[in-house]
Amino acid sequence: MKKLINAPSAVLADALKGVAAAHPDLAVDFDNRVVSRASAKQGKVALISGGGSGHEPLHSGFVGLGMLDAACAGEIFTSPTPDQMLAAATTVSAGAGVLYIVKNYTGDVLNFEMAAELAEAEGIPVKTVLVADDVAVEDSTWTAGRRGVGTTVLVEKIAGAAAEAGDDLEAVHAIATRVAENGRSMGVALTSATLPAVGKPSFDLPEDEIEMGVGIHGEPGRKRVPLRPAAEIAEELVSSILADHDFTGAPVIAMLSGLGGTPLIELYAMYGDVAALLEQRGVTVARSLVGDYITSLDMAGCSLTLLRADEEMLRLWDAPVGTAALRWGV
Amino acid sequence: MKKLINAPSAVLADALKGVAAAHPDLAVDFDNRVVSRASAKQGKVALISGGGSGHEPLHSGFVGLGMLDAACAGEIFTSPTPDQMLAAATTVSAGAGVLYIVKNYTGDVLNFEMAAELAEAEGIPVKTVLVADDVAVEDSTWTAGRRGVGTTVLVEKIAGAAAEAGDDLEAVHAIATRVAENGRSMGVALTSATLPAVGKPSFDLPEDEIEMGVGIHGEPGRKRVPLRPAAEIAEELVSSILADHDFTGAPVIAMLSGLGGTPLIELYAMYGDVAALLEQRGVTVARSLVGDYITSLDMAGCSLTLLRADEEMLRLWDAPVGTAALRWGV
Repeated sequence: MKKLINAPSAVLADALKGVAAAHPDLAVDFDNRVVSRASAKQGKVALISGGGSGHEPLHSGFVGLGMLDAACAGEIFTSPTPDQMLAAATTVSAGAGVLYIVKNYTGDVLNFEMAAELAEAEGIPVKTVLVADDVAVEDSTWTAGRRGVGTTVLVEKIAGAAAEAGDDLEAVHAIATRVAENGRSMGVALTSATLPAVGKPSFDLPEDEIEMGVGIHGEPGRKRVPLRPAAEIAEELVSSILADHDFTGAPVIAMLSGLGGTPLIELYAMYGDVAALLEQRGVTVARSLVGDYITSLDMAGCSLTLLRADEEMLRLWDAPVGTAALRWGV
Repeated sequence: MKKLINAPSAVLADALKGVAAAHPDLAVDFDNRVVSRASAKQGKVALISGGGSGHEPLHSGFVGLGMLDAACAGEIFTSPTPDQMLAAATTVSAGAGVLYIVKNYTGDVLNFEMAAELAEAEGIPVKTVLVADDVAVEDSTWTAGRRGVGTTVLVEKIAGAAAEAGDDLEAVHAIATRVAENGRSMGVALTSATLPAVGKPSFDLPEDEIEMGVGIHGEPGRKRVPLRPAAEIAEELVSSILADHDFTGAPVIAMLSGLGGTPLIELYAMYGDVAALLEQRGVTVARSLVGDYITSLDMAGCSLTLLRADEEMLRLWDAPVGTAALRWGV
């Protein structure tokens, strides 16, 4: 295993030091592994997400104006604890309640539920939105129901803009839920990720095979198939997503995210195929993102996320955002 | 070789289709492989860069307001031709001349020189800034003198802001030259990149060795050493750069760029070590970037760039920029 690390057990703590050094506008609570906005805005609904590390920039890269107020980081591919999530809530709660944005994995769901109870007990109103957008499989290794993946980024951006604009907890929860309900994703792995603590690829994928519908922790997808041209992979991702939800007759936000080990030139080549297919199927892409937004350490591959948007979502999408990984208008 | 591509020969053309689809504010000339700003600003000095592909987001990801006016793309790791560079100049020339930003590789240098002559013959005044900032080796595989690497990004940003503000060709060339002279870089490879057309790693690096001072095309660096902790690698990069130029007593812009195959969590861990070392050595980091900015396909590793800045450079750094890969204030 070749990694730019000091020790497998130190990766997260060391990365948080780097985040603190690189981003003076963020506050890092090293004990609780919470990254938050250095300056809170009183009376604003606080948005908090979190999950296992290894998916960067998700979530700490999305903390800042118009998006998350705090992100709590678990160890790699491991849910943070309720204590961390509670610490995040007490840190950024600004009198208008907290929205927890949770990816649908059993550990995250249970821990965020417990954290919500603890926060409520401390007088902080909490609502939760669950993202379960991965169309690949219905249940998975660590999931009852669908896995939560790329739509999470879009929920954080759009609900973040609503909160920044002063919407109350009810309204922010409502738009977050609408985004979660209208987003769909599917990914493909060309290689496995290698966890620092394990030291070898977490699953075996022969040199001539790919995993269609892989999860962001390397969970099995729909099937293993022979390596094929990008256009055929794009066709399968697009078809699977379009078969699951109607994306016609509305503006669509498309995100093609690398999984960490795929160079940008390949992502753009892939996006060219995706965009052509969507146009053929009568889907109108109104906004797009191409790059690494939700990753799986050094896994080669990508995931496609489509959101059936509406005018309000587009307006909130276009609102200023000032985070490490997503920034415009600021 | 596992890549998200259709055919090795089609990667660049396919990626340009993706760029066109993802960025409606960019114009793509598919014949000349030139990406340019869709709307030119009359009377503005035009900034053009280019080079072999495979280093994305460099250069096409830096085309837009406040940075490049056009980027011309060669095949992977291959200089574009003078014709392409001339086409870029005639496309974006807006009456105030053109600045070519050239990384110091023999092919790029010769071709940009020829393009400059051709453009001058067509009545377009051209100046050129050469970036040769890699402290690792004095001459290299494709280079007389030092290789040009990360400082190129900073030249494009800072000179781009000067051009956007209305500075004339002389002034834009002067600030670009000052940035080029005051930037230094060095990289490290944990793995080789794999070129689509070659299909296997372009150099052999044993599982327990790294290449200190590697070039962005996999050119040999200073030495191969056993794999070691990130803090020791950071120490070597920082020491090599500080030994080459004085970075004390001035604000410094630091960029830690991934080489394409290294996940963001590792880059941040590495940046934590870099930032601590710089502080120990009395270097004041005023601005920083951590992410993939100048890459080498899927190579694992990173490069560190430091710029000894001044107040004018900082002001131009902070000016609005609106590109695919670098954006703030827009």
